[in-house]
Amino acid sequence: MTEPYRFHASPRLTTSWDNFRFAKADGVATVTLDRPDKLNALTFESYADLRDLLAELPHHQDVRALVIRGEGKGFCGGGDVNEIIGELVTMEPRDLMRFTKMTGDVIRAMRECPIPIVTAIHGIAAGAGAVVALASDFRVVSTSGRFAFLFTKVGLSGGDMGAAYLLPRVVGLGRATELLMLGATIDSATADRYGLVSRLVSDDELDASVADLARTLADGPTLAFAQTKSLLTRELDMPMSAAMELDAMTQALLMTTKDHAEFHAAFTQRRPPRWQGR
Amino acid sequence: MTEPYRFHASPRLTTSWDNFRFAKADGVATVTLDRPDKLNALTFESYADLRDLLAELPHHQDVRALVIRGEGKGFCGGGDVNEIIGELVTMEPRDLMRFTKMTGDVIRAMRECPIPIVTAIHGIAAGAGAVVALASDFRVVSTSGRFAFLFTKVGLSGGDMGAAYLLPRVVGLGRATELLMLGATIDSATADRYGLVSRLVSDDELDASVADLARTLADGPTLAFAQTKSLLTRELDMPMSAAMELDAMTQALLMTTKDHAEFHAAFTQRRPPRWQGR
Amino acid sequence: MTEPYRFHASPRLTTSWDNFRFAKADGVATVTLDRPDKLNALTFESYADLRDLLAELPHHQDVRALVIRGEGKGFCGGGDVNEIIGELVTMEPRDLMRFTKMTGDVIRAMRECPIPIVTAIHGIAAGAGAVVALASDFRVVSTSGRFAFLFTKVGLSGGDMGAAYLLPRVVGLGRATELLMLGATIDSATADRYGLVSRLVSDDELDASVADLARTLADGPTLAFAQTKSLLTRELDMPMSAAMELDAMTQALLMTTKDHAEFHAAFTQRRPPRWQGR
Repeated sequence: MTEPYRFHASPRLTTSWDNFRFAKADGVATVTLDRPDKLNALTFESYADLRDLLAELPHHQDVRALVIRGEGKGFCGGGDVNEIIGELVTMEPRDLMRFTKMTGDVIRAMRECPIPIVTAIHGIAAGAGAVVALASDFRVVSTSGRFAFLFTKVGLSGGDMGAAYLLPRVVGLGRATELLMLGATIDSATADRYGLVSRLVSDDELDASVADLARTLADGPTLAFAQTKSLLTRELDMPMSAAMELDAMTQALLMTTKDHAEFHAAFTQRRPPRWQGR
Repeated sequence: MTEPYRFHASPRLTTSWDNFRFAKADGVATVTLDRPDKLNALTFESYADLRDLLAELPHHQDVRALVIRGEGKGFCGGGDVNEIIGELVTMEPRDLMRFTKMTGDVIRAMRECPIPIVTAIHGIAAGAGAVVALASDFRVVSTSGRFAFLFTKVGLSGGDMGAAYLLPRVVGLGRATELLMLGATIDSATADRYGLVSRLVSDDELDASVADLARTLADGPTLAFAQTKSLLTRELDMPMSAAMELDAMTQALLMTTKDHAEFHAAFTQRRPPRWQGR
Repeated sequence: MTEPYRFHASPRLTTSWDNFRFAKADGVATVTLDRPDKLNALTFESYADLRDLLAELPHHQDVRALVIRGEGKGFCGGGDVNEIIGELVTMEPRDLMRFTKMTGDVIRAMRECPIPIVTAIHGIAAGAGAVVALASDFRVVSTSGRFAFLFTKVGLSGGDMGAAYLLPRVVGLGRATELLMLGATIDSATADRYGLVSRLVSDDELDASVADLARTLADGPTLAFAQTKSLLTRELDMPMSAAMELDAMTQALLMTTKDHAEFHAAFTQRRPPRWQGR
């Protein structure tokens, strides 16, 4: 159905995802969490499918942006209390570790994925739903949007799935401490003030704003976007001099691309550039 | 007087602290800096006692939250100009190093302490007082509260006691540069805007707000709070993948605790959970 | 013309800079980007001169603060589209790497320079101009000021010259992603809200505000300022305990300086301190 990139040989891409809706159109892939009666609570299967989709997605030739959204009244209420927590309380260490590693793998895959990821947040983004939003590159949030890193409220550590790593780097250590320790719910205005919101829109505008941003990302210089995301992710963990060396090498390579030459040609000819992602 | 935890053998816990007031009630320990005529300026002895109290406190079976507050017109004016600076200017390298290491040890002990720490800030928090506030997990600040990282104003480095490490991680590098280089005083509204304030309240509300937060922390899932704080502290210094692995291991362990099972039982029975911290 | 410090032997300091205006007065050095018809676009030569000036400046006995400003309608529009990008698109890897390393060296030199750096931002600070502003210690921004990290708009990585390292540490990962991925222009009020502005002033006040801040920096305790900047820079890359040890050693050394003793003498005599920077 989709043509794989070079450097992808025997594995076949999965053609149907059973635990969320998946669609592609004009370079934009969309994952829709679709259990609206359960506030789109995640299950063991939907975590696994998210992890595996994110690993496959870079091999989809025709995907240049990913949107994650939720059907119904909210984005995602987190792990399902009955289907997940009900199981966990009786699970052995071996399987608990497999589970928590899998959930972390979803978040790591989001950060490692070269494709820009937009989450569309309306209503509640709680628990794992809040961390998925946090790990995305852009959070388009409607005024009804709310975030709750509520892990301590279920007796667990606030540092779930990388939240104790990522949140201080987004909102600062003070606010991250408040959010992760207490698990309180914050509204969209507070989240915006904290730097957790890329675009704050009305509920009516949410779909259009997400589509507009996804369009910009899918139409843009794909390689430049991918490398910018990669540098932002890697350089959180690098000392300054190494980061500057990585920037220098990356930029020198990108200066040899068709897209950079295209910018100059377009500029000289006073027309918009036509990006090819190479 | 207090019963030590397991894993505490010969040392006896200190029963009286001479350089601040110390009290415990209902799981909340309170340190009150009590030299109001000197704006609660710290002395060699009060630094040493803070360091040693913070090392002992995790062995107090009956302490699940710590409040640090100041008596009188402000929180803490920093190191005493006469009793500390007057001595330092004639001190030998050996003792200067001992002193500066001791002050850093106070701040490190605050960050390493598994017990959540709330500072109650009214009036001035200056110099070492500002860094103690910065290193606490929650800063409840009244409208009279002010912060002054005034080290350069006394001819010293702004990076005192870990401030050049902690402050950029709370307020960002730009604002941290401004505060540490110039040593200017900021009011509570500015501090709030910068992300340095957990709760901003009127002076009248300060004690009640601090008590309320301390109550929440002391009543909550102690182990979950302790591990959340530990992850927030450690993961500032860890690369992403290692942080996610630490999160996964921590969470798998916490999923085997009585508190996590209690959440599920309480949820199923539609009642509030009764946390035991185990 | 200027007397070198000790620990500077054979090299002669450059006496004239051909690619920007350079002036010194009362301890304040000023670089004025001076191609107003090109929005002060940088050229290969001005990058090289900035790098070399920043390496020499610490050897100027009489410079205790550096101001970087732009002549005309804006601060700096970035690399010159014709003189730089026009060349890059035909350049070999060897020279591309030399160029990107040189631009990174400018930013690294700004962060390594012990002299506090103030940028005066009016109108546009775009591309390399935005990164120069970002790497300075203080950004005095007038209401006309605008920032555009527009690298992806020319088909390149947003992580140019250390921007993907520095910007998340100033404004947080969420806002840095937005600014570097999309390359959008933000106005001075937005930049201020994000923590990218040290002082926000009217256009009329810009020169006076910059002069005032430079005066404070040039008159202040030079050594304390230099070490504060060094700690802020280094401790971004250090774990907490190492940072506290560095703080302790630095502070113990500064406690033996004349400036620290001068503070105490001045305090005791109820007069302002006279800093000597030693």
